[in-house]
Amino acid sequence: METKIPVGILGATGVVGQRFIQLLEDHPWFEVAWLAASERSAGLPYAEAARWRLKTPLPSHIAKMKVSPAEPDGAPKVIFAALDAGIAKELEPRFADAGHAVVSNSSALRMYPDVPLVIPEVNPDHIKLIECQKWWRQSKGFAVTNPNCSAIGLVLALAPLHRAFGLEKVFVVTMQAVSGAGYPGVASLDILGNVIPYIGKEEEKMEEETRKLLGKLNGGAVHMAEFGISAQCNRVAVEDGHTESVSIKLKTPAKADTIIDSWTRFREIPQELGLPTAPPQPVYYDNAPDRPQPRFDLERGRGMATSVGRLRPCGLLDWKFTVLSHNTIRGAAGAALLNAELLKAQGYLG
Amino acid sequence: METKIPVGILGATGVVGQRFIQLLEDHPWFEVAWLAASERSAGLPYAEAARWRLKTPLPSHIAKMKVSPAEPDGAPKVIFAALDAGIAKELEPRFADAGHAVVSNSSALRMYPDVPLVIPEVNPDHIKLIECQKWWRQSKGFAVTNPNCSAIGLVLALAPLHRAFGLEKVFVVTMQAVSGAGYPGVASLDILGNVIPYIGKEEEKMEEETRKLLGKLNGGAVHMAEFGISAQCNRVAVEDGHTESVSIKLKTPAKADTIIDSWTRFREIPQELGLPTAPPQPVYYDNAPDRPQPRFDLERGRGMATSVGRLRPCGLLDWKFTVLSHNTIRGAAGAALLNAELLKAQGYLG
Amino acid sequence: METKIPVGILGATGVVGQRFIQLLEDHPWFEVAWLAASERSAGLPYAEAARWRLKTPLPSHIAKMKVSPAEPDGAPKVIFAALDAGIAKELEPRFADAGHAVVSNSSALRMYPDVPLVIPEVNPDHIKLIECQKWWRQSKGFAVTNPNCSAIGLVLALAPLHRAFGLEKVFVVTMQAVSGAGYPGVASLDILGNVIPYIGKEEEKMEEETRKLLGKLNGGAVHMAEFGISAQCNRVAVEDGHTESVSIKLKTPAKADTIIDSWTRFREIPQELGLPTAPPQPVYYDNAPDRPQPRFDLERGRGMATSVGRLRPCGLLDWKFTVLSHNTIRGAAGAALLNAELLKAQGYLG
Amino acid sequence: METKIPVGILGATGVVGQRFIQLLEDHPWFEVAWLAASERSAGLPYAEAARWRLKTPLPSHIAKMKVSPAEPDGAPKVIFAALDAGIAKELEPRFADAGHAVVSNSSALRMYPDVPLVIPEVNPDHIKLIECQKWWRQSKGFAVTNPNCSAIGLVLALAPLHRAFGLEKVFVVTMQAVSGAGYPGVASLDILGNVIPYIGKEEEKMEEETRKLLGKLNGGAVHMAEFGISAQCNRVAVEDGHTESVSIKLKTPAKADTIIDSWTRFREIPQELGLPTAPPQPVYYDNAPDRPQPRFDLERGRGMATSVGRLRPCGLLDWKFTVLSHNTIRGAAGAALLNAELLKAQGYLG
Repeated sequence: METKIPVGILGATGVVGQRFIQLLEDHPWFEVAWLAASERSAGLPYAEAARWRLKTPLPSHIAKMKVSPAEPDGAPKVIFAALDAGIAKELEPRFADAGHAVVSNSSALRMYPDVPLVIPEVNPDHIKLIECQKWWRQSKGFAVTNPNCSAIGLVLALAPLHRAFGLEKVFVVTMQAVSGAGYPGVASLDILGNVIPYIGKEEEKMEEETRKLLGKLNGGAVHMAEFGISAQCNRVAVEDGHTESVSIKLKTPAKADTIIDSWTRFREIPQELGLPTAPPQPVYYDNAPDRPQPRFDLERGRGMATSVGRLRPCGLLDWKFTVLSHNTIRGAAGAALLNAELLKAQGYLG
Repeated sequence: METKIPVGILGATGVVGQRFIQLLEDHPWFEVAWLAASERSAGLPYAEAARWRLKTPLPSHIAKMKVSPAEPDGAPKVIFAALDAGIAKELEPRFADAGHAVVSNSSALRMYPDVPLVIPEVNPDHIKLIECQKWWRQSKGFAVTNPNCSAIGLVLALAPLHRAFGLEKVFVVTMQAVSGAGYPGVASLDILGNVIPYIGKEEEKMEEETRKLLGKLNGGAVHMAEFGISAQCNRVAVEDGHTESVSIKLKTPAKADTIIDSWTRFREIPQELGLPTAPPQPVYYDNAPDRPQPRFDLERGRGMATSVGRLRPCGLLDWKFTVLSHNTIRGAAGAALLNAELLKAQGYLG
Repeated sequence: METKIPVGILGATGVVGQRFIQLLEDHPWFEVAWLAASERSAGLPYAEAARWRLKTPLPSHIAKMKVSPAEPDGAPKVIFAALDAGIAKELEPRFADAGHAVVSNSSALRMYPDVPLVIPEVNPDHIKLIECQKWWRQSKGFAVTNPNCSAIGLVLALAPLHRAFGLEKVFVVTMQAVSGAGYPGVASLDILGNVIPYIGKEEEKMEEETRKLLGKLNGGAVHMAEFGISAQCNRVAVEDGHTESVSIKLKTPAKADTIIDSWTRFREIPQELGLPTAPPQPVYYDNAPDRPQPRFDLERGRGMATSVGRLRPCGLLDWKFTVLSHNTIRGAAGAALLNAELLKAQGYLG
Repeated sequence: METKIPVGILGATGVVGQRFIQLLEDHPWFEVAWLAASERSAGLPYAEAARWRLKTPLPSHIAKMKVSPAEPDGAPKVIFAALDAGIAKELEPRFADAGHAVVSNSSALRMYPDVPLVIPEVNPDHIKLIECQKWWRQSKGFAVTNPNCSAIGLVLALAPLHRAFGLEKVFVVTMQAVSGAGYPGVASLDILGNVIPYIGKEEEKMEEETRKLLGKLNGGAVHMAEFGISAQCNRVAVEDGHTESVSIKLKTPAKADTIIDSWTRFREIPQELGLPTAPPQPVYYDNAPDRPQPRFDLERGRGMATSVGRLRPCGLLDWKFTVLSHNTIRGAAGAALLNAELLKAQGYLG
């Protein structure tokens, strides 16, 4: 039996850090060897430092593992980063600089010109961008990021259409789950029986990340895709699962059947390589008139697939439809994990 | 003291029928004199026929009132109709034919060419259309309708802009309250922790009613306003209050200040005449970055005002913003009541 | 490979009927061979007759199966019954009379003197009561029932204590999930942001079923256990999982450690025989001060285990604690399925 | 017109502080003259220091008022205190010592032998206890407290029965609203679709405060009422309104009618004196089988009345019933305000 690659988790006690632990349990390639969190937690056994918030039990070997300070010294080569943007901006470069492979879920570095923002089914070739990073040149360290939880489901639904027909315009209005805001995150008094029509910086992230993800790598730089996009983001009383009402205009006209076909047949490198976390089918289309819904469709592909439904003509653009994806699996920890699997498959993890 | 005009309520036991009773209590012009419901209820005291579902107590004189069969015979001249569309299509014409003034909240007749679809602040002149109805010619009976609960908030926000700058395109995605579906309506198992991305016929209603309301009466017919519109409708776990994410393109460019000014200063006939149910200010703009919200902003103008917020540039059209309005007051019973007040002020109630 | 026993489901389209289908998929002993529902559904493929409401997909062979009329003729020997009490009262005896083994989740026959009300971990010996049924004598048909969804979690927590120390008094207040009321069941307008302090006949069922389950079989009759019990039942905005605040007085005083031990070590015939649906450990005690909670603890033992927590002294009786169990798995379909497994193990299914 | 008494609010920016501001607007006797909060807020206009979280708008003169440091110096004689217990324990005595009338909602001093814990309808005579305080003797300052939000509704329902028949035993299980935990308080991820069977120190407070409130003042000390009491406290997904399942044993047997009569006719000093915040009828009994419910019954007596329903025999004690009261009005700010009105009426505010 092959030896597993030891990995570390930066920000291990938060909501996304916990998901990393959960998804890495029994992972065929990686095993958690190092957990880091804020100074307050350092030195404590993980079970004391974290308030475990997932439905599956905290693995007992993790419970006993001592939390390390968030310093590169002593950390394994591969680091999953689940930090708040402010801290990430300072810490992630330090780890990359010290020779670590930083696989980050934070927004801090996503739009840096030489940092790949990657969804393995969408733009796996962007990974190469890490070779342009000064960290790589100096220490073979690097940083790779995945998109915001609201962008990733959308982009998985858009990618097959962009390839086949070209996107010209994209409208999207989100209804986002509270888990997207971390823990404690949204106060119950703010969301019970309510809608909050605002999530700080979310609309900007959706608009720019979508265009970078669907952009082209060319001579060491990503040329942003050139379609227009407008996003409006709302928070609703749902625990997990971002639902999005989308409307699009295509460059080449397409019929409903052809569009649905593009979604259903969409397969890419993660599926071809059989990456452990890759969903067998990344995009599902549901014919029922009232789907997808968070209650029923969230767990497709163990939370890694995007569900689409209600394709119908749009009175202004060409087509409108509904997208749903799991914001803390496909939209966070699962996204970074799949990025790490792609890096491993391409030989970047040594 | 003037004698009040006796009014009847068709469909008095349902959610909207109950709101009529609530809003008509202590009304300065009208008093409830007749309540009708399905055969099963006819003959019973109202308190037994209806399961009262509002927070204010059932008025005791209404509790004792005997429910009549839904027949024109014996009914007062003025009838508020809160029937399901299927029944309304058959019953409302019978009442109009028998000489009654039918002030309806149902969708059944809204798009009939000679039936006015009216918001008193928006298109009060459309009321005249009733004189084209055959019922009017035969018996001085007529039917007037108000729009769907999801259209009315939107149109109140659009009307001042359409007048001042001309609308060219309108995108709208709704997050609608469960009370919009009546009682029992949406099952709790369908909506707790969930979003349902579908409400039957709602998108079609929003698109066509909006254009009729903002259309022009010309030679006995309404010419639909000619802007493009695309609606997507979702149900969320909110009791009362429809929130809408809107994006618009104007014919004449306008700055944010000017747009906010158009909303804030918007006053029309109902305000000029001081109609009893008219809100002093029909549209409020809130500068806070995260408003309006159902929890806080629903009761403005006693549920008759529309709240708007988050005006910001749109990446595809000109401007995007959020609209909130009370779906069972401004969006249903209050809308019909204000129509009746306009009819009275214009001498149509005799 | 052994042939599986064909089973039928009466009331196959409802919430509990669907759970039966879900739990019977890949069952090692039973396979669904017959589905029956109301006349309206008879003759339709199941996928058209039922609106599938579970998170796992409807198995495709079930989707195509034609729904039969609810008649014994042509039905397999073993019948799972998921009918409303009113219909069950008439239909279940007809099936038993025709020689079927009716394994029922309905309340209709539960308190009949010769009908066993059974939880396999609690009173497996009561099963013998079926040999006193006239159906058994005439046709080897019989009926076995499982308790109400609110009683079963409670009784699993009480049984080890009753055996070890004797119960003298039991107080219980429930906070029950909406799925207990079936579908559509509780209207969203009734439960969003609300508590309903009333569930029809639930308190009576809890009180009498608990005493029958913990009673003794003696000479062909069950002698009800003789402790006092008082139940108060409330509905809360939770999808699945009944939480109960319990207080008890024991005949023999016991310390906290001993009580927790009684729960933790509790094993019975289903565990000894390794019945397929039996949870390895029927009762879990959680030391955390704020557990059990529906969100985290519902799936223990794949929904078949009861969770207990917060054991602390009671100011009036001896001890108070909190109980949680899954109302549509352990509290309904899973309960009946475990009864059927016990019947099979004891040779009653031929 | 009489001059109003200037009052101050300690902890003015929190949830209860905001309720004080709301309830004091247009108060006939008091007017807000001073607002204090933590150091961070001192010096800011109130609108900047607080995030206003109530449905009625922030009064404009309050919005502009500058927040003072939480020091007695410069504060008015009468102080409403809405502080966390830890801070209250230190600050409230300092204000009392400096000659202020501290009317507190905090738990810090409630169980001090010489601090009155008062519900004006229940034990108005306990107010005299302030004359035993050393602060009174030294500076005519004093402190008066009101009970916990979960105790007050219960005690209002128990008081008429205790007087008429004598209480012997009280069981109570609560289902408490999230607003009881302040803001941000309960995380949405903790309560959506969930029940939390634990609220820190709540059960202890309910048990001891209930007995102090129903106790007798005798020779400068309160003799705790001697009935047994056991409380279990749960948090549910409700915004406002604590629902409680109660069971009682009386010393003198009483019939249902007599009990209901005791509730319905209950009137005390606040009603006799017509204190401005006193509800005309402190306890309502509702005959409907499924009431009271937070959705419908919370606003009785403008949030100052307690609703009771479902009186029925108890299998263990004598009677069981359901109690509902508004936790941030009657259970917090309104309770303190009514205490202040009683103090004024009895001449303690100078």
